[in-house]
Amino acid sequence: MPVTNHQRGRFITLEGGEGAGKSTLLRGLEAHLREQGIDLVVTREPGGTDVGEAVRAVVLDAGNNELCAEAELLLMFASRAQLVRQVIEPALAGGRWVLCDRFTDASYAYQGGGRGQPIARIADLERWAAEGLKPDVTLLLDLPVSDGRARAAGRGEIDRIEVEGDAFFERVRDAYRARAAAEPARFRLLDASASKDDVLAQAIAGVAGLLPEATS
Amino acid sequence: MPVTNHQRGRFITLEGGEGAGKSTLLRGLEAHLREQGIDLVVTREPGGTDVGEAVRAVVLDAGNNELCAEAELLLMFASRAQLVRQVIEPALAGGRWVLCDRFTDASYAYQGGGRGQPIARIADLERWAAEGLKPDVTLLLDLPVSDGRARAAGRGEIDRIEVEGDAFFERVRDAYRARAAAEPARFRLLDASASKDDVLAQAIAGVAGLLPEATS
Repeated sequence: MPVTNHQRGRFITLEGGEGAGKSTLLRGLEAHLREQGIDLVVTREPGGTDVGEAVRAVVLDAGNNELCAEAELLLMFASRAQLVRQVIEPALAGGRWVLCDRFTDASYAYQGGGRGQPIARIADLERWAAEGLKPDVTLLLDLPVSDGRARAAGRGEIDRIEVEGDAFFERVRDAYRARAAAEPARFRLLDASASKDDVLAQAIAGVAGLLPEATS
Repeated sequence: MPVTNHQRGRFITLEGGEGAGKSTLLRGLEAHLREQGIDLVVTREPGGTDVGEAVRAVVLDAGNNELCAEAELLLMFASRAQLVRQVIEPALAGGRWVLCDRFTDASYAYQGGGRGQPIARIADLERWAAEGLKPDVTLLLDLPVSDGRARAAGRGEIDRIEVEGDAFFERVRDAYRARAAAEPARFRLLDASASKDDVLAQAIAGVAGLLPEATS
């Protein structure tokens, strides 16, 4: 039975480092939620709008190796500001659910933990650029850095973020885990070293509490 | 006689609304400064770097009519953060002068005055994204909005900013003039309704105090 549009939709984000299986999980979780009759919008960061996709091209272009940390942070929040206003908020207000591949937690992890941008600066941008919007549930795919990089290496071309060294990705992972520990009610820490089916099962269990009883 | 590189270069910005003659003045002033033996870098905002030019394409694309004010502000400062670190600061530190077509004052005028973004927000971005960098001299080409728009209308294709109404450009002009009034030591308010030669003469007089005595 489809969920009616009389209440605000739910907002689910997927987070995790390189090679953690985020794309695979996204497809599996999307299929599961649609089977439950959820009216779902699937989007991603950076991206999801014309502006966001243009930003994505700049941020991930391995040729832009001079991009400074401040510009990277500002570009990520430019994409996010647009996505929140043009896609996420209208969908949630209309009762649709939103499943987003990365969101503000990624800025705390990559631009904060990875690049050393101050947390207070990111928190300030979160407040006014992202309207303070928090996901209902954030699924964090956690994996040792070496395992994730070994998986990612099999995918061919690498982008401007993926060229970073292990120390960068250790800081990213630490920042993600610290956020999960600080907000246990919102985060679901998934063991991404498990099989694809098992990771999907963990994710489905992680969002089960959001589903209306009529569809469970 | 060329200026030696033993002291920090000077930073000159050009500001003004649509049709004020900024491009013409830029070329004239550039020629004048080079004739004085100044080692000069000429750049622009948004733009001036690979990242900045990509941002420029997004911000000025008339098709991006959904671009929200917050994303516009963040994109402008992303371009600026990169330009300051990659172009302006290295040039000034090396003793070169920088002549820039628009800088942070344009964000106060367009995103602040025009779009209503809070001044405190822009000031905060100026501090950390633009390293608080202030021009030595800012030449403000001032012109009644109706005159400027009449001139700009003769140029053909209009961009995403130029489609705004007169009220928007009145707010932009008011914000520019308020900044000039608040910082009289830095600003030179030029009467852009004068002839091209006269505007150039005003600009040359406006920067004369920056020139080393050996070249004047």
